[in-house]
Amino acid sequence: MQFEISKAFIEKIEHLIEEQNNQELLSHLGDMHHADIAEILDQLTLDEATYVIKLLDSEKTAEILMEIDQDDRERVLENLTPKEIADEIEEMDTDDATDIISNLSVELKDEVFKNLKDREHAQHIVELMRYDEDSAGGLMAKELIKVNENWSVTGCMEEMRAQAENVTRVHAIYVVDNKGKLKGRLSLKDLITAPSNANIADVYIENVDYVDVHTSAEEVARVMQKYDLEAIPVVDEIGRLVGRITVDDIIDFIRDEADKDYQMAAGISEDVDADDSIWELTRARLPWLVLALFGGFIAVTVAGQFESAMVNYGFLFFFMPLIAAMAGNVGVQSSAIIVQSIAKGTLTGSVWKRLLKEVGLNVLNGIILSIILFLGAHFILGRDYIVAFTVSTALISVIIIASLIGTFVPIMLNRYKIDPALATGPFITTSNDIFGLLIFFTIAKYMLGF
Amino acid sequence: MQFEISKAFIEKIEHLIEEQNNQELLSHLGDMHHADIAEILDQLTLDEATYVIKLLDSEKTAEILMEIDQDDRERVLENLTPKEIADEIEEMDTDDATDIISNLSVELKDEVFKNLKDREHAQHIVELMRYDEDSAGGLMAKELIKVNENWSVTGCMEEMRAQAENVTRVHAIYVVDNKGKLKGRLSLKDLITAPSNANIADVYIENVDYVDVHTSAEEVARVMQKYDLEAIPVVDEIGRLVGRITVDDIIDFIRDEADKDYQMAAGISEDVDADDSIWELTRARLPWLVLALFGGFIAVTVAGQFESAMVNYGFLFFFMPLIAAMAGNVGVQSSAIIVQSIAKGTLTGSVWKRLLKEVGLNVLNGIILSIILFLGAHFILGRDYIVAFTVSTALISVIIIASLIGTFVPIMLNRYKIDPALATGPFITTSNDIFGLLIFFTIAKYMLGF
Repeated sequence: MQFEISKAFIEKIEHLIEEQNNQELLSHLGDMHHADIAEILDQLTLDEATYVIKLLDSEKTAEILMEIDQDDRERVLENLTPKEIADEIEEMDTDDATDIISNLSVELKDEVFKNLKDREHAQHIVELMRYDEDSAGGLMAKELIKVNENWSVTGCMEEMRAQAENVTRVHAIYVVDNKGKLKGRLSLKDLITAPSNANIADVYIENVDYVDVHTSAEEVARVMQKYDLEAIPVVDEIGRLVGRITVDDIIDFIRDEADKDYQMAAGISEDVDADDSIWELTRARLPWLVLALFGGFIAVTVAGQFESAMVNYGFLFFFMPLIAAMAGNVGVQSSAIIVQSIAKGTLTGSVWKRLLKEVGLNVLNGIILSIILFLGAHFILGRDYIVAFTVSTALISVIIIASLIGTFVPIMLNRYKIDPALATGPFITTSNDIFGLLIFFTIAKYMLGF
Repeated sequence: MQFEISKAFIEKIEHLIEEQNNQELLSHLGDMHHADIAEILDQLTLDEATYVIKLLDSEKTAEILMEIDQDDRERVLENLTPKEIADEIEEMDTDDATDIISNLSVELKDEVFKNLKDREHAQHIVELMRYDEDSAGGLMAKELIKVNENWSVTGCMEEMRAQAENVTRVHAIYVVDNKGKLKGRLSLKDLITAPSNANIADVYIENVDYVDVHTSAEEVARVMQKYDLEAIPVVDEIGRLVGRITVDDIIDFIRDEADKDYQMAAGISEDVDADDSIWELTRARLPWLVLALFGGFIAVTVAGQFESAMVNYGFLFFFMPLIAAMAGNVGVQSSAIIVQSIAKGTLTGSVWKRLLKEVGLNVLNGIILSIILFLGAHFILGRDYIVAFTVSTALISVIIIASLIGTFVPIMLNRYKIDPALATGPFITTSNDIFGLLIFFTIAKYMLGF
């Protein structure tokens, strides 16, 4: 069961490719699971990977291509002829085939279509290409098993044997009427346990969850998770069954969304991986850093406004990083909890109640932290009472304001249909730095008088 | 398909509960999907929710209980008698039943077990309780369909009709030998399309992925995702089939892991939700803030060491928040990319190569940001060339060091089997604040001489 690629094995494969020893290569890779071969290809050069893809059967390579990283896939495809790409497409489910074809250049797309022998498959791909990528139509595949409500169970079993050839996994059998409208579903289990002289109309389950082609991918994921569905049928504008979405597509979607929120919180604006090129990584990271730098300019200016304090209260400036860091940390905590609750769909109730709760929570945290700061500033750093009291008072004020900003901003962004995850990461830390310093120095000025 | 709970509907339900109008309540809730009822219960008080749970059929409430939030579930269970809890347990799959029973107090556990009528179910639960929660044994359910390799296809169909009663969803039929050892699998599709006079031994697929009871949950998730499995059989130490894990358990696991990393990056140490109590939220947030505060003390001390600069170069202190913020942001970006690559399992190759790449990337980012800072400090903030040059030089040094720390720390934590996500969030920003300021002032001292 455990599959580990050893360095020695990779070297052996590379050696066999160099020698063009196809027979040996096939004996090593032929029986291997496509996901394992994909892992091996990840470690080979582009030319070596292309060599393997051209060597293996297109039934297998179609699956391998769907496993490898998108960037690598595009590079491999560039090395194949339109005929070879068409052979791969022929073996893929319509949803995967559509993803691949959509990413080809216009000319190549035409060439590939000309080489597709299975006209029905080609028509399905053309149909799927019309839908938005992030809609149910864009996620669905045409491969499904449907039976007519007027058939008998025995007739249905016959028909299914034929249809099942094209469907990798049978999640459910969908029942349609003579016009192709979705009426209900039937599990294989129901079919097996039904008396053989029954009619489909007697045994199918009418209460079937479905989405329509324009339902957003997010909503599809929510519905499938909520009702624990492994597949969901998709209907068109007039209720006709046109496709189905399976749970593995949804797992990918859930992971991508979680990754996106995480990266946003870390100040990375594109989906990047440690193995991407320096150029791609820079493009994802630099914009947030530039934003943070401009925020830093403002912070410098704010601090500069209180230059007069430097003569008698210079040590106040030593506290700036502490105040800024606490403001940033509190703000990110607050916004992260809101962002995650929005993502899970558990955020309900009034904004005011939520802000009030956040204030309550941070008054509690703020008092504890301010007492620690007071004791630390007085006994460890040796500042007198009034100064220790000043920075402690400033800290609790900064914590409360920072938490309010952290709570309020994502709720408002979400209300105006902007991704609330924007409010985590550099955006919130930078603005809280600025507000934090402003509050800190204003309170200090008032209390110490400078 | 769309299900929206209106405020009016909730009020109606609350009113019916107050009136104890069971008939009306049943007519509203009786046909509703358990996931929808769970959503409704979320909006009721504990007493109201308990009333509904006691009213509805245990076949339905068992599923509702598994949908609602764990805290709410525990509170509802506290209001049920051992007999009522046993009725719920009786209706649950063994994996869910085990989760519920494991969380009961020792006395209550005994009482519930005494009330379980289905002795086989009880034995299965006792067996599952032995396994670690985060192992395949802890995730698996006993409900599965298995057939003996020596049976005929027709006999198998008969047997399955009986077994299928206990299994909600049939993902695969597992084939075992006379000793109960896992030999292979069979899909329902294969069974349907097989000639009826065939034997199981002729048609089953030998190449079956499996895990053993001690495999970690993480590894189970990795294998199921990699090979796109909807269910995986679990075997014991001597290869006997003892359970199966389905994809919905894995989806929950993947989400929890992603949430955990995200919360760690945001400085939240427990799985909390915006709706949790202030006490729970404080416990999850305060520890990181205290850590950051102590880091802040060190930063104050570091800045204090350079007090002598205040006479002639006081404005250097204005730049502290900018330097600290940039160090923090760069550090979090670097560590987040590493943490995510580790989570995806795509992080391979030598540490040195990766550090070198990170340096290359950040020299590029650093040069661009330093030029912006130089121009900004000179032309906008009006500082002379030498000062602008000093802060720019400090910035690029800080960026490179911060990125190295952000890359190195999670790789090292992971190597020593500590969760690398620890290295994101407050931990990395706080330490980078300190290092950033130290580097900044040291470079300034050397260049400006104070």
